Amino acid sequence: MTASLPDIDALTLAEQVAQMVVVRTCGYLFDSQIPYPEWEATTATMQHLVELGIGGVIFLGGSAAELALRTQQMQSWAKIPLLIAADIEEGVGQRFPGGTWFAPPMAISQIARTNPQLAAQYAETMGAITAAEALAVGINWILAPVVDVNNNPDNPVINVRAFGETPSVVSPLANAFIKGAQAYPVLTAAKHFPGHGDTTIDSHVDLPVLAHSPRRLAEIELAPFKSAIASGVDAVMSAHLLIECWDVEYPATLSAPILTGQLRDRLGFTGLIVTDALMMKAIASRYGTNESPVLAVEAGADILLMPSDPKGAIDAVCEAVKNGRISKRRIRESVERIWQAKRRIGGIKIDPSKIALELSQPEALATVEKILQHSQVVRGKVPLTPTPKGYNLIVVDNLLGSSKFLTEHSPAVALPKSLGYTTWLCDRHTPFDPTIETDNLPTLLQLFIRGNPFRGNTDLTQVGINWFKTLLNSGNLQALIIYGSPYILEKLTPAMDFEIPCIFSYGQMPQAQTVALHVLFNE
Amino acid sequence: MTASLPDIDALTLAEQVAQMVVVRTCGYLFDSQIPYPEWEATTATMQHLVELGIGGVIFLGGSAAELALRTQQMQSWAKIPLLIAADIEEGVGQRFPGGTWFAPPMAISQIARTNPQLAAQYAETMGAITAAEALAVGINWILAPVVDVNNNPDNPVINVRAFGETPSVVSPLANAFIKGAQAYPVLTAAKHFPGHGDTTIDSHVDLPVLAHSPRRLAEIELAPFKSAIASGVDAVMSAHLLIECWDVEYPATLSAPILTGQLRDRLGFTGLIVTDALMMKAIASRYGTNESPVLAVEAGADILLMPSDPKGAIDAVCEAVKNGRISKRRIRESVERIWQAKRRIGGIKIDPSKIALELSQPEALATVEKILQHSQVVRGKVPLTPTPKGYNLIVVDNLLGSSKFLTEHSPAVALPKSLGYTTWLCDRHTPFDPTIETDNLPTLLQLFIRGNPFRGNTDLTQVGINWFKTLLNSGNLQALIIYGSPYILEKLTPAMDFEIPCIFSYGQMPQAQTVALHVLFNE
Repeated sequence: MTASLPDIDALTLAEQVAQMVVVRTCGYLFDSQIPYPEWEATTATMQHLVELGIGGVIFLGGSAAELALRTQQMQSWAKIPLLIAADIEEGVGQRFPGGTWFAPPMAISQIARTNPQLAAQYAETMGAITAAEALAVGINWILAPVVDVNNNPDNPVINVRAFGETPSVVSPLANAFIKGAQAYPVLTAAKHFPGHGDTTIDSHVDLPVLAHSPRRLAEIELAPFKSAIASGVDAVMSAHLLIECWDVEYPATLSAPILTGQLRDRLGFTGLIVTDALMMKAIASRYGTNESPVLAVEAGADILLMPSDPKGAIDAVCEAVKNGRISKRRIRESVERIWQAKRRIGGIKIDPSKIALELSQPEALATVEKILQHSQVVRGKVPLTPTPKGYNLIVVDNLLGSSKFLTEHSPAVALPKSLGYTTWLCDRHTPFDPTIETDNLPTLLQLFIRGNPFRGNTDLTQVGINWFKTLLNSGNLQALIIYGSPYILEKLTPAMDFEIPCIFSYGQMPQAQTVALHVLFNE
Repeated sequence: MTASLPDIDALTLAEQVAQMVVVRTCGYLFDSQIPYPEWEATTATMQHLVELGIGGVIFLGGSAAELALRTQQMQSWAKIPLLIAADIEEGVGQRFPGGTWFAPPMAISQIARTNPQLAAQYAETMGAITAAEALAVGINWILAPVVDVNNNPDNPVINVRAFGETPSVVSPLANAFIKGAQAYPVLTAAKHFPGHGDTTIDSHVDLPVLAHSPRRLAEIELAPFKSAIASGVDAVMSAHLLIECWDVEYPATLSAPILTGQLRDRLGFTGLIVTDALMMKAIASRYGTNESPVLAVEAGADILLMPSDPKGAIDAVCEAVKNGRISKRRIRESVERIWQAKRRIGGIKIDPSKIALELSQPEALATVEKILQHSQVVRGKVPLTPTPKGYNLIVVDNLLGSSKFLTEHSPAVALPKSLGYTTWLCDRHTPFDPTIETDNLPTLLQLFIRGNPFRGNTDLTQVGINWFKTLLNSGNLQALIIYGSPYILEKLTPAMDFEIPCIFSYGQMPQAQTVALHVLFNE
């Protein structure tokens, strides 16, 4: 079924510009459930914006079932079918409980070290399952793969989201993901152009600067983008990064030399150029809420993602056309590319009552398990004989936001409990320092640490390290499991007795916990 | 629309007995999300049981959206329309996020102290909204109202779930709830017969004994049941309680003198007699997994709720008929009563895509807010001037199971944070005792404590009291908010300086937090 798209010239300027805007919305069904009222509009406002003719929405929050109902609600309001995007880099289940949740891409790059062919197969399956499940809940645009080369272990924002640490690993895996997704009428997006892998500042918080030479950029950062473009990726997302050698004034998202000069002209990309979220601080507070959308369009963007004020963004871009700053042709070119994308995805209607048959199917879960098993690192002496009177100490960034992977029923909690362990929990809100004395019981330490886009994970790492040291010094560290960042593993293990069991998993989801604990206890 | 029900005599004995069984199932869509695999069957097994002809299901877990999809899935498998039950004593939102979540019934009894008429209006609206929302997600049997008289403050299982502490308060409020629900084709159930209000043992854990005289039972415990029956309540649920003056051998659930002698014959109840969950320890481990369903039917029950082994229960009851222990007529009478109930609810099909327009509507939320405001207790000096460098210490029973009312976006966390407070969290898994010294900062203490069916709240109460004492002694207790049990308020306030602000709310949900904090800070 092909989406019925009107003749572009039959649209007013404002209608054309509205098609370039993708608005943030939440996947919950009720206004009372909106987690970020300052950024996510009420249902009535969303209906107004969709009826006004915005080009699409991006979903955050809600379960897969809620999302399936909500995407159809939004499409039912739209005269022109909506792009429906989501940041599902690790599968639908990463964001929307009920879908399949894959290990982060870097898990696959770990497998590629020994078996590149198998790793590419996993990446392709991951792309295919993610696309099939996206479609089942009404998502038609996967904002993935991340093709950044994570060559800086201190990177707080990319980290395990990358398909590797070198372009020669990233490119084939990202291509395989794209290839897998291409079997379905779902769009993909390579991000974050020209490469966000070598930064230590998070652009959600401030504007990072990349001081590399054009030659280095071509060798490392640009290579996976070239390769993704050759593979036919549908969109490229810009980074909020200052690339000094190309543009000393504007970050990539707002830079004509970068989006048009490099991406469109030099790399010859003919698909959608989409900005990263315009509400992010690196852009919104520096360049102005409604000025930054204008700058982005001037720079060459086709899609303005998550402007803080969608109506204001449309008005500002229209005004810029009226006063000659942006040409009508420039707008029309973007809408043509949007039409091309919308034709590819069609106007498929979904049946929410079918999602139980389409998501989290046994083969999908089996693939996740294989990836987790093959990428898991095991050191020290396993299996461990459980200690019925021991402690199971879990350190997690934020207990108030961990329910997707940590509940009473999660293996990390339930399995040691069934063996007699007492559960202890710490997070950034725990009122005490772990350096105080504890009683003398063997302790299984489970750390859930990975980069967090909205805060450095330094604090949490420190809490984890303090606990680790306390337990190591008292001789009570029975075993260590790290879920998330391989860089934490590298920090901690040199101090450890080689005999103490230590497991590292890239995943944090319940399946990852099962895989790790079964090895630890040989359950 | 009337449900099409076959002629009872056209059913085999096994088919008739199967109609008496209501099986526990989870509201999530995927087997991987089942929280209690030992008690909740996979989707394939559920399909098998429904196709076998069980009479109904009871749902635990999942969001309102998931439930709406899942109830229709179950009904689509059933030849005879299913009873679909849920323990939504405080509205659909209590169990299934997305629906309206009312304050516990005891909040309304608090209002009745000064304005019985207004309280009855609230109870009736609560019944009506709960019924309308239940219907919208496919639930046709509300396992409420609780008509127990909570005349024992140490009661770990009823507590704030009761509509009051005396029969003269409970009866009119429970009747009003029933009346509100009766406007919809949804069943109700008065529970737990003959009255669970005066126990200190939780029957989820062990078998409580009630040593009262028949006269006292008639005066206190039975009065609200008589009154609910007169109001036309559709079902009465039995308690797992030993009532020594009536039956020294069997608890009410399995007692013929109680279910048939008292409830059916003396009180003249002609509706459904439903057991409380047969898998509860007080029954399952004492009287046998498959023997207890037989005893319950012998005693007079029409519906066997949550037997541990549904197939085994059906077989055991059939066997008891075959060997003459139970008459065929006895089974037929139950099925007739079940048919009567199924005729009342009809075979309504729902449209899950409409639930956004039917749940959590503004008028419903406004009613909840009024109940919260009118039942809230405020002492000490408010409003309080916020202390930007203070601590906001939240004590909750279990952070791993609190996400329904406590996330980063919940007012109890977000509002003090926006005023500069540092969030601290403690629960039963926090590794330290609160009696250690803290630094000298003013602290807002928020306790979330109410009775928990599966464990006494003694531990948590002690943690809360320890914190309270530590802060009081150091002079750092800036304000106290208790969400949940009024009995904790009574325990703590005598020690407090009259000037220190203290707020008590019956509710724990985000709306209750907003109401309390707005009074505290005059926001």
